[in-house]
Amino acid sequence: MTSTDNSFTSAVFPLQTMDVPGGTETVLPGGRHLFPLLPAAFAGVHQIGVIGWGPQGRAQALNLRDSLTTSTTGTGIRIAVGLRPGSASAPDARAHGFTEHDATLGDWLDVIASSDLVILLIADAALAAHHQEIFAALRPGAAIGLSHGFLLGHLRATGGTFPHGHDVIAVCPKGMGDSVRRLYEQGDHVGGAGINASFAVHADHSGRAVDLALGWSVALGSPYTFRTTLAGEYLSDIAGERAILLGAVHGLVEALYGHYRLTGDDPVTAYERSCETLTGPIRQTISRSGLAAVRDRLDPGGRDTFDRAYTAAYGPARELVAEIYDEVADGTELRSVILAERRLADRPMSRISGSPMWAAGQAVRARRADRAVGVEPFTAGLFVATMMAQVDEFAERGHPWSEIVNESVIEAVDSLLPYMHARDVAYMVDNCSRTARLGARRWGPRFQAAYEQIAFPAATAPADGDLVSAFTRHPVHQALAAAAKLRPSVDISLPDAPR
Amino acid sequence: MTSTDNSFTSAVFPLQTMDVPGGTETVLPGGRHLFPLLPAAFAGVHQIGVIGWGPQGRAQALNLRDSLTTSTTGTGIRIAVGLRPGSASAPDARAHGFTEHDATLGDWLDVIASSDLVILLIADAALAAHHQEIFAALRPGAAIGLSHGFLLGHLRATGGTFPHGHDVIAVCPKGMGDSVRRLYEQGDHVGGAGINASFAVHADHSGRAVDLALGWSVALGSPYTFRTTLAGEYLSDIAGERAILLGAVHGLVEALYGHYRLTGDDPVTAYERSCETLTGPIRQTISRSGLAAVRDRLDPGGRDTFDRAYTAAYGPARELVAEIYDEVADGTELRSVILAERRLADRPMSRISGSPMWAAGQAVRARRADRAVGVEPFTAGLFVATMMAQVDEFAERGHPWSEIVNESVIEAVDSLLPYMHARDVAYMVDNCSRTARLGARRWGPRFQAAYEQIAFPAATAPADGDLVSAFTRHPVHQALAAAAKLRPSVDISLPDAPR
Repeated sequence: MTSTDNSFTSAVFPLQTMDVPGGTETVLPGGRHLFPLLPAAFAGVHQIGVIGWGPQGRAQALNLRDSLTTSTTGTGIRIAVGLRPGSASAPDARAHGFTEHDATLGDWLDVIASSDLVILLIADAALAAHHQEIFAALRPGAAIGLSHGFLLGHLRATGGTFPHGHDVIAVCPKGMGDSVRRLYEQGDHVGGAGINASFAVHADHSGRAVDLALGWSVALGSPYTFRTTLAGEYLSDIAGERAILLGAVHGLVEALYGHYRLTGDDPVTAYERSCETLTGPIRQTISRSGLAAVRDRLDPGGRDTFDRAYTAAYGPARELVAEIYDEVADGTELRSVILAERRLADRPMSRISGSPMWAAGQAVRARRADRAVGVEPFTAGLFVATMMAQVDEFAERGHPWSEIVNESVIEAVDSLLPYMHARDVAYMVDNCSRTARLGARRWGPRFQAAYEQIAFPAATAPADGDLVSAFTRHPVHQALAAAAKLRPSVDISLPDAPR
Repeated sequence: MTSTDNSFTSAVFPLQTMDVPGGTETVLPGGRHLFPLLPAAFAGVHQIGVIGWGPQGRAQALNLRDSLTTSTTGTGIRIAVGLRPGSASAPDARAHGFTEHDATLGDWLDVIASSDLVILLIADAALAAHHQEIFAALRPGAAIGLSHGFLLGHLRATGGTFPHGHDVIAVCPKGMGDSVRRLYEQGDHVGGAGINASFAVHADHSGRAVDLALGWSVALGSPYTFRTTLAGEYLSDIAGERAILLGAVHGLVEALYGHYRLTGDDPVTAYERSCETLTGPIRQTISRSGLAAVRDRLDPGGRDTFDRAYTAAYGPARELVAEIYDEVADGTELRSVILAERRLADRPMSRISGSPMWAAGQAVRARRADRAVGVEPFTAGLFVATMMAQVDEFAERGHPWSEIVNESVIEAVDSLLPYMHARDVAYMVDNCSRTARLGARRWGPRFQAAYEQIAFPAATAPADGDLVSAFTRHPVHQALAAAAKLRPSVDISLPDAPR
């Protein structure tokens, strides 16, 4: 995408202008105080169909129901969950209060046909296989809602289009479904907790698509909502999860664990210096105080190590992020996902959580209470360099700053890394969406090899002062600070660590 | 490709039928005794233009000149080298006796316009960029010669076609240019030395294209020549170099070096047990005695280790080879090469030879004379399993057995691994063709991760008896034995180790 004007207006919600490097962006700060405005945003909507009951489907159905039907400003809008015939998710949906009895649970095509807003949260492969049936089942004028741009990418790759006569909108929470629900619940008693979201209006048949999307985002509990395009969302989302959000993190901790082991660490110490320091104190510092604080708080020796690691990793990481971005934009990456789905119809996908470091991870988690792990400067330099490589690549490709900081920094430190801290990185790769999982499996090893074969040998050389000062004076710090102002500095609640 | 009939007839050369699993294949055994037949094969050809002076261009120009103009059966055919204006290769071509003075060196478009057979051996990227100019420069009825199927893949990916009215033939030596030359020279005094080749007739305008291709192959010194299609050659060549020929080997030795270091080996010993054993005794055993011999010659303990490693690696390796094959067949892989070439126009490609194991490799090579390295069973099991994964995947996709054993076994053990033995694996990756180099960089890390994260943890379990006996009773052993019969068991001369 090229640079777009991200300003917009709303007939319902009070907007804010946020200063970002090189200009301003319009954003909607969310909050429960806006719930009285939801009836106006959803005017004419009698039923919202949430199709699918994965983590994202469950979270959105529950948040929407809480915001629209059980809050003090009940709108009378029904939230109905649609599932495929024989879906194994039906019992869990019933356990959460969606039942055939009161018509809040039903066959997906029936729910689609009776809803005014149809939010499609089934798996990418199912969306690719069944979108034509879904389009055919829509009632006239019903709005199509998406939570990422995959379907647009698929339609482009296969020569298809969205049907005419319908709004096509997207609200894309910058975090996993579990976090979308957990932080919404936390937001009930802690003002401002929640997961940020982008929104996009791809088709505005009704003339009211912006407010419909904003209402959806407010009802999900987004602390702030910024505008993007469906194509921009697709590119940054798919590229980001292959890079700093998931693939690069996995490659980094695998490379670092081996590196620390080879330089003499026992397994537990190596795990602490690679994975634990990253998902713990490094993540926390960035989340609370921004990227520059990671370096600023090191002592001079640590700062030199950070700078050498940063210098050594930035180049190869940038090379890889550019490669990923090119392949996502070209459609190559999506074709590989489609090819993989075909192979996976015959044989299950292998799991990657058997390597020795994850056994060490269990030991580390077990003794967390007794032991504080600090910021490891070498790990921090490599991680921050990779994050900055993604920030710079996304900026060069013209993404808005809200999208850049959310897809490169905030989603990482406030949603994914906390989850990895509670479970572990390999567990997360093995259990995320198929598109993300395939992407992490494709690109994680590329990052691992780049660190091992290029960055580690280069990190013995002195730091590049220009590169380091480009980091310390980088406009991303301003964009992050602007985003932070819109959200009280709450600590995100963490899921219980397993076993 | 699906299974094809690979039988063919020749009006010039005496052919043989070779037994292969499930049937027979027609092959042409080569040799200098056939040189008197070359004038008949090249009837009507006054000049052969070799376009490009990379390793393959140099080797083919020199071999063709030796066979056609300076042998006792001189044909009077001129071998002319065509180079782009300002080519840095001109001095080397002159040093090898190709000169403007006698019209055996000239501008590429001039040489193309004056040749009856135009052999295109410029880099893939140049072929992609300039094939239309080249086609336009051809004289009427001139034959187009290729040494791999890349151009077909590119034309398919971009909607182009070969021009009508020309033979389109391919002769594809199953080894690097340097080997094609070195083994040809060796063949002057050792009967049967040389690099096997496949040939394909993609368009037969003249009605004599098969004999033209066979003549070209005989003149290159191919010990035997088998038939394929241009599409089949493309698929097996591009997929093979990403898998067992290059990408998988690099991933395997990187993974194994770290594995042996972590289990207590010093750098030199770890190098010997990962890389040296592979490019030395394992390679030699396969080359001289076939694949089964590697396992047969181990003691019972070693055989158990081999079997466990084989069992652990076969599945993940097969998964990766299938993924590679799908992406090559779909065009995805080639699109990624085209995208990478665009990025590389602005920034050079990083090198991967800086990781610590290659420093250990120098020490190992320096003390080779004093020290015999044996077959390491764990390394052997992983390598042979990966090779068999490629053999099985190619067989399932319908490739002829000659192509399977050449692209999966013979090219590996008789051409590439000896080169890696003399230099090292990373050096080879950094210095091979751009298409191969990009492919090895894309897929090598995937193999490394699959060994580290899936195969190594699984190798502690007992071996799968069914999988091992499928290996010991595999039809590939018959196909390899048949190929071996057509070639005296000479040891291939090795280039001098550097420094």
